[in-house]
Amino acid sequence: MSRVPGSDRGGSRLRRVRDRLQDERLDGLLVSHLPNIRYLTGFTGSSALLLVEPGVATLFTDFRYEIQAREEIGPSVALAIISDGLFDELALRLSEEPPGRRIGFEPAAITVRDRQELGTRCGTVVWDAAGAPVEEMRSVKDPWELDRIEAAVGLAEHVLSDIVSEIHVGRTEIEIAAELEYRLRRAGSESLPFEPIVAFGPRSALPHARPGDRRLRAGDLLLLDFGARVDGYCSDLTRAMVARPAESWQRELHAAVDEACSRAIAAISAGVSASTVDASARDYLAELGLADRFGHSTGHGLGLEVHESPRVHRLEERPLAAGNVVTIEPGVYLPGRGGIRIEQDVVIEADGCRVLGESSTGLLEI
Amino acid sequence: MSRVPGSDRGGSRLRRVRDRLQDERLDGLLVSHLPNIRYLTGFTGSSALLLVEPGVATLFTDFRYEIQAREEIGPSVALAIISDGLFDELALRLSEEPPGRRIGFEPAAITVRDRQELGTRCGTVVWDAAGAPVEEMRSVKDPWELDRIEAAVGLAEHVLSDIVSEIHVGRTEIEIAAELEYRLRRAGSESLPFEPIVAFGPRSALPHARPGDRRLRAGDLLLLDFGARVDGYCSDLTRAMVARPAESWQRELHAAVDEACSRAIAAISAGVSASTVDASARDYLAELGLADRFGHSTGHGLGLEVHESPRVHRLEERPLAAGNVVTIEPGVYLPGRGGIRIEQDVVIEADGCRVLGESSTGLLEI
Repeated sequence: MSRVPGSDRGGSRLRRVRDRLQDERLDGLLVSHLPNIRYLTGFTGSSALLLVEPGVATLFTDFRYEIQAREEIGPSVALAIISDGLFDELALRLSEEPPGRRIGFEPAAITVRDRQELGTRCGTVVWDAAGAPVEEMRSVKDPWELDRIEAAVGLAEHVLSDIVSEIHVGRTEIEIAAELEYRLRRAGSESLPFEPIVAFGPRSALPHARPGDRRLRAGDLLLLDFGARVDGYCSDLTRAMVARPAESWQRELHAAVDEACSRAIAAISAGVSASTVDASARDYLAELGLADRFGHSTGHGLGLEVHESPRVHRLEERPLAAGNVVTIEPGVYLPGRGGIRIEQDVVIEADGCRVLGESSTGLLEI
Repeated sequence: MSRVPGSDRGGSRLRRVRDRLQDERLDGLLVSHLPNIRYLTGFTGSSALLLVEPGVATLFTDFRYEIQAREEIGPSVALAIISDGLFDELALRLSEEPPGRRIGFEPAAITVRDRQELGTRCGTVVWDAAGAPVEEMRSVKDPWELDRIEAAVGLAEHVLSDIVSEIHVGRTEIEIAAELEYRLRRAGSESLPFEPIVAFGPRSALPHARPGDRRLRAGDLLLLDFGARVDGYCSDLTRAMVARPAESWQRELHAAVDEACSRAIAAISAGVSASTVDASARDYLAELGLADRFGHSTGHGLGLEVHESPRVHRLEERPLAAGNVVTIEPGVYLPGRGGIRIEQDVVIEADGCRVLGESSTGLLEI
């Protein structure tokens, strides 16, 4: 469905990378981070390198992906099928070119071993740590990308409303996780951006619990954190529930987190620093004496990766920009009792933000 | 279920790492590859570093995993909860120690950026590329690990027999993939080691096809490649099927791949090089004129990762060792028509090997 438009977008994105090369006087950029390769070429396989040069962009992948790559990449990308190690073969090819060329690489997406391979096999190239130029481009979404993320949110919300009938006392976390995954896939999620978190009772106080054999009991808090993927783009939602009867401490805890979430969202606008948004949630919870029970950051960017730039972190001073998509997900965790996290996906706009999706963040009693 | 034995094993594994440190005159090993951290400590979270020193092993992770880490790691590991970047904080801590300590790192599991972080924040340590000592340990499985892999194979085979009733003309690849995933999870797979590959008709000629909207038609080949995970350990199986009526070229292609698979398995024994095993399959397919339609390697190691050491590659001269577990998965792919791959999981023994599981590799006609 996305192939033709994907290729077109790939072409204009490659042009922007080339503009950047020119600005930085680089003869090429070696892209090794797979989500960046997907962004620039449409290729979805699990093993590839992309070399962007002024006149040509070349995708290196192996036999397993030959047919798929031809289907996925547009006319603006050349395909090179290699038979052994990607970095090996790339370095060999580059060693045939005139010496002294400056090629950028992605320091956060290449291992020390592969960097050494490039250096020893291909000493004629001057390798230059290029920062994260493609991640920077990716952090601002265009309308087509926003549509995909919104579709992924819609899909997750549809499954959320659907799963409730499956949740009752006696069922295990892993059963509910399996039902969630199954429904997400059946509803059209391309794959799952991450393993759903399903945690009952005291286990909901583990922010990243792996679903286990714990059975739901009356009075348990439930934490569900999951997402869908549409054309590569992720959603990421968290909702809290309680198996009746709810106790007042659960309702109060939920109200506190819900208010923290609302305050963070109300603080968002293009130009506001991420740390300010984080503080809006954190300071409110601190007023309630809950600061030390909220130990993670308030959110993270969302797109082709489920964690990407920008992060919504207490130390992140950079301003948010229109077109950024971030999660807002404050949480409070009481060891031995349970935890509540509420997570919304929002797109930053010139004077505010828009929450993607329309499902309630209320404490669902089931 | 695996916590207590896991911790015990962790202790003896840490001792072996320490022996190695002594041999190499290192004051410590920084383990950054998460499967290695799980192997040594039992920790299953998605963000951590492990510093193994002669007197102590310290797991660094963040707030999200605090409770989980305390549950998972044994008494032989100390826990340090950090609030910001893992490499940042680790480097800060190490910078407080006496200068000149030599600490090994895993060059294939640390990015250039993180390596720079260690260097600039913590210049008093002499950082030493340590190869892949933990991967080497992991490549030889003990009986407890073999039991887990065998259980993961059994689980996948159970689901394989179960899924057949779901497969009929008109269903899409993605529907069958969703059914597979659901059944794997319901049957107890801890998570999925990889996204199942389900490919119909000509799409089975894409060795790593992502399931799509293609509907099964009479006469289609089907390729199913999937696995399960038990206590972290993976299985990985591929089977071919055909939607009746089968044509003779399909049966012949299947017989060729099945024979190639049998020949590779027959060639396996401790002390035999991986390249010899690869050649047993490859040479047979070459005799049939199919060499250029088998473009990937014959197999790979299997354990806590679905691709690990040793690889069964035509250029891999190192001998296989008793206790290695590898996949044997020759395949032949005819563009526009379809492909067949058969994949078995085997454990290498002193004088031969043992195929894990008992399901037939025959061409199932459905």
